[in-house]
Formats: sequence, structure tokens, C-alpha cells
Amino acid sequence: MRRVLPTVEQFVEGIRASNRVLLGQAITLVESARADHQVLAQEIISRLLDLPASDTYRIGITGSPGVGKSTFIESLGMYLIERGHRVAVLAIDPSSAVSRGSILGDKTRMEQLSASGMAFIRPSPSGDSLGGVARKTRETILLVEAAGFDTIMIETVGVGQSEYAVHSMTDVFLLLLLPGAGDELQGIKRGIVEMADILAVNKSDADRVALAAQARAHYLNATHLLPAKASEWSPRVLACSAQEGTGVSEVWSALEAYKDTTLENGYFAENRKKQASHWFREALEQGLAQLFYQHPAVKERYGNLEERVLTGKISPFAAAAELLDIFKNTIPHTLYTVPK
Amino acid sequence: MRRVLPTVEQFVEGIRASNRVLLGQAITLVESARADHQVLAQEIISRLLDLPASDTYRIGITGSPGVGKSTFIESLGMYLIERGHRVAVLAIDPSSAVSRGSILGDKTRMEQLSASGMAFIRPSPSGDSLGGVARKTRETILLVEAAGFDTIMIETVGVGQSEYAVHSMTDVFLLLLLPGAGDELQGIKRGIVEMADILAVNKSDADRVALAAQARAHYLNATHLLPAKASEWSPRVLACSAQEGTGVSEVWSALEAYKDTTLENGYFAENRKKQASHWFREALEQGLAQLFYQHPAVKERYGNLEERVLTGKISPFAAAAELLDIFKNTIPHTLYTVPK
Repeated sequence: MRRVLPTVEQFVEGIRASNRVLLGQAITLVESARADHQVLAQEIISRLLDLPASDTYRIGITGSPGVGKSTFIESLGMYLIERGHRVAVLAIDPSSAVSRGSILGDKTRMEQLSASGMAFIRPSPSGDSLGGVARKTRETILLVEAAGFDTIMIETVGVGQSEYAVHSMTDVFLLLLLPGAGDELQGIKRGIVEMADILAVNKSDADRVALAAQARAHYLNATHLLPAKASEWSPRVLACSAQEGTGVSEVWSALEAYKDTTLENGYFAENRKKQASHWFREALEQGLAQLFYQHPAVKERYGNLEERVLTGKISPFAAAAELLDIFKNTIPHTLYTVPK
Repeated sequence: MRRVLPTVEQFVEGIRASNRVLLGQAITLVESARADHQVLAQEIISRLLDLPASDTYRIGITGSPGVGKSTFIESLGMYLIERGHRVAVLAIDPSSAVSRGSILGDKTRMEQLSASGMAFIRPSPSGDSLGGVARKTRETILLVEAAGFDTIMIETVGVGQSEYAVHSMTDVFLLLLLPGAGDELQGIKRGIVEMADILAVNKSDADRVALAAQARAHYLNATHLLPAKASEWSPRVLACSAQEGTGVSEVWSALEAYKDTTLENGYFAENRKKQASHWFREALEQGLAQLFYQHPAVKERYGNLEERVLTGKISPFAAAAELLDIFKNTIPHTLYTVPK
């Protein structure tokens, strides 16, 4: 069942022309574990990297389960499409390693967006590590941007490390909250509140005005206690009801204000650079570890050394030195200068 | 000025016999950047690793500058020596990279302990990275334990990442606080409060009883809000005045209770294993990165690729792949199976 893949040229032209089928196929290459697919994907991405950073906007969105993320994204997405934007929705869901695509798997949760030719929705890639899943999403961002989608929303569940991954690939971080105070503090880690640039109390429906005000006051206070951000932006706390369609335009205004402010003070460009550098280092570390742990001689020795480390028979440093020597001895010695 | 070093045999015998000169020399080898010193240090440590974990107790101690850490350590240390213990005091101070040994550099701050034959004090090693400084301290722990010091206090300043390093090499974590409430919250990060097993409000002098009670109440409340620990231990909040000599025995009782509890439920041994495994991984990653970044071909290409990543001319992943290929190509190909 080998299919003939389009050529790099066909991919590049097709994606630039917003061909959704070729875009989808290119993302499948990014998500593939096959080495030849990876090489092809890198070639395609390299050819497509000529967009000024300021042309696109990468928005990270998180919030506890039940906060109404899908409804919010649908509502904000349709609002933007009406204003001429083209919107892509991606996700990072580490749990999708088990049940592929538990976030966004069900596109029917975003009925209008799914049906719009101006939107592109892709469920979370699967993978056996958050690092791998995040890498795939990061590359997918580059592809959807090249296909002309200018606003990229990246959704994640508010339960842990995945927020840091989303934060490391987005320009702005939006935290959705529920009305009422107190309970939220339990569900949302302080680190996530600290990362948020804009906080929106969703489900602030007409009959829950008091609860919504309570939550806003609580989080306004919480954000005031945080140290100033490198972006020089003071977090804003808003209320909205994606269901009732209220407040969503105000959230967008705040997102626009954030982009304007950070474009002007240089943080936007600086942050994109920092993120690229971070991903470069991460990719190097991951690749290096793979090279090391796949090495037959390392594999053969690893189990025994680890066992001896755990039982205190050898120091972790001596064990590591032994394993590194095994690896290093397969590299021509002359390549290395003697360490001082 | 080359000196003839003692043999491994001499080091091993000398350290086991608590020879302070040989112990100090062995630690100097651990701290040395010279490859031959490192090899020798590893040999010595490997020969000395036969102590049951439960024979020793590694205590991490932190607190903001001004909280009285030195006075506290002197007071607790003398209390323990009177009860037949042998006490080692080490430190991790990342700032010592600049001004060597700013913590504990001045032994006169611990006059009695310094003078005691039952105590061994060593200032923070210097180093250009926290990882390097931490590794040296971790190895020094093994040496002082082999020399018969059963209680190891590892001090750090309460200002950042160094707490995580100390936490990753100790059995218990003690946080010293100042009387009064409110201010402390500013200086001490929540993550550090979360790591603490025992919190002691130091400087709870006779004339500051009310302020001390206020601080205790505040932190009792804070610790109650934290999720349960893997050790199944509920953090205790105590008051003491190292200066006036009050409450220090209660802090020791709490430390003993912690050790008893965790020895009994298996966490103590489990944690030591987990730490050894963590250090093994860390040492591998550090060594691997060193091998990679020292590679002449990698060095030659790195700057240019990083520049292109930062200016968006190449994706971080493509750049990493290129650099990894350069590295990999110097290793015989046949060693690797083809990735799936």
C-alpha cells in the first residue's frame, strides 16, 4: 500500500496556494515516525520559511476541562473570519498518546468553524512523549502559516506540563476561567496563571454576573501580585460568554492590544527569536539522546550499569563516565582535543 | 609545581580512617577540572560506596539571606556533636562562580563547629554552571560519608534554582523563616515552600513571640493547602532561636521523626534510588552535550546555523538535523540500525 508522494515542489506550491489536501498530507509527514518522511517534511518546511513574523499571530489557549474552550474557540474563530482573517486551530494533548486526539477529535464540537473554508482544524498529534508531540505541533504551525492562515490558536488542557510547551511556541497566552472564586485556585496551577497575558472568565452568562465579577476581582488581585513581565504587558482580566456571544470581541481587542504593544517594544520579535533558539537546543538534545541510547554498545551496557547505580554499587557519575566512554570510543579519537 | 598525589589505596584507607587531610585532598580532586583528577576521584568514590543508606542523613537547609542559617547550623551541629554525631557542612552557592565561596567562605561564622574535630566544613565549590557545582557537591557527600560523617547539612541561599539542586541530593528539606507574616511570601518562592518537609521560624527570640506565632500560623495554613507529599509526611512548622538556643532540639526531633517515618514506609530508600537514577541521567546528558559541542565539525557549523535559526531562515528542527548529521557521520554507520 505504498502511495506515490507528491514532490517537494508540488507540496511547496500547493501549500502556498492553500491546497488543504496537500497541507494535510504535509502535516501527516511531520507527524510520521518514518525517517524518509521526516527528511521530506524538513525540506518542505525549509522552503516555506519566508514569512515576516508579524504577519501571523500564535495564540495559546488553556483552561480546565469544562471551561468551554471549544465553544470559545468556535466563537472567536467565527468572529475573526467575519473580519477577513484565516484561522487555524491546533492542539497539544499529551493524553492523545493513548486515545488519539481526545482534544478536537470530535470536530462537531466546532461545527461552524469546521464547515468554513477560512478555517483549518487539526487534532493533537499523538506521540509517546510531550516533547515529540510539541515538536510536531511546532512544525505544523509553520506549515499552516505558509498556507495563509494568519491566526493560529493552539489549545491545551489545563492540567500540567503541556501548558509550558504551548507557551514556548506562542506569542500570547490566554487562560480561560470559570465564574466564582476559590474553586479555580485548586484546579489551575500558579505557574499557569503566571504565564497568562490575558485571563477571560468564560461562561459569564447574564444570570451569573455576580459570580463572574467575583472571579474577575480574584484574578485581578492575583495578577497584580505577580512580578512584571519581560513583555512589559500588564495582564488583563476580562469576562465573556462564548455561548451567549458576549465579551468575545473584547477578548480579541485585548489580544490585538497585546500584539501592538509587543510589536512596538520589540518583545514580539525578541520572543520569536528566543523560542526558535529554545527549539533548536531542544531538537539537538533530543536527537543526541536518541543517537546515544540507540547505540548498540550503550544499549548492551545500560541496564547493568543502571542497576548498579540504583543499588549503590557504583556512583552515578562513574557509571555515566563508563557509558560515555563506550560511546566516545566509537568516534575517531583524533576528532577531540584533550580536555583541559 | 606538580605534587605527587597519594595512590587510590592511600586515599581509600585514609578517608575510611577519617584522615581530614586526605579527605580534603580527595574533595579537591572532585572539584578539579582536570581529566586525570576526575578519573582518580571516580576511582576513589567507587571504592568507598558500601555504606547502607540509612546510616547517614542528608539534610538540605535553605532560607533567605539574613535568616541566620550559619548560626542555626552551628547551633544544630554542636547539639548533634554532643550526642555523638559527626557532622559535615557543605554548601551550594551558584554565585561562588564569581566570588569563590561566598557561603561558608568565612568559617569564623561557625566558630565552634570549625574548631571541633567531630565536624567538617567545606565551602561551596565554584563552577561555571549550577549543574557542575551540584555534581561536585553530590560527590563530596559520598566522600564525607565514607569518612564517617553521619549527618550532612547542605546549605544554600534561598534565591532560586540552587534549592532544586539541593533538594535532589538530600533526604529532607528544611526551610528557615523569619518571624512576622507577609514579607516572607515575597522573598520565598512557592515552589520552595512546597519542597520543605520542616519549616522553622528562626530568630523567634523571647521578645518576638507574637511575630513568631504569626509566621507559624501563616505557614501552617500555607502548608495545609499543599497537595500531599509522596513521602506521606505532613510538613511541620516550628519556632526556634538559634541565637538563644531555644527550639533547636525540637527541630532535630522533627528531623528524626521524618527519618523514622520515611525509613519505615520505604520512602527514604526509594528517594535515594530515585536521586541516584536522576544523577545518572543528568551526568549522561551533561557528558553527551560536552562531547557534542566540543566536536570540531559541530563547533565549526554551530554559529552559522544558530544565526539562520534566529533570523528564521531555517527551521530549528532542520538546523538541528543538519548538525546532528555532521556529528553522526563521524561515528561508523554500521553501528546504527536504520531508524523505523
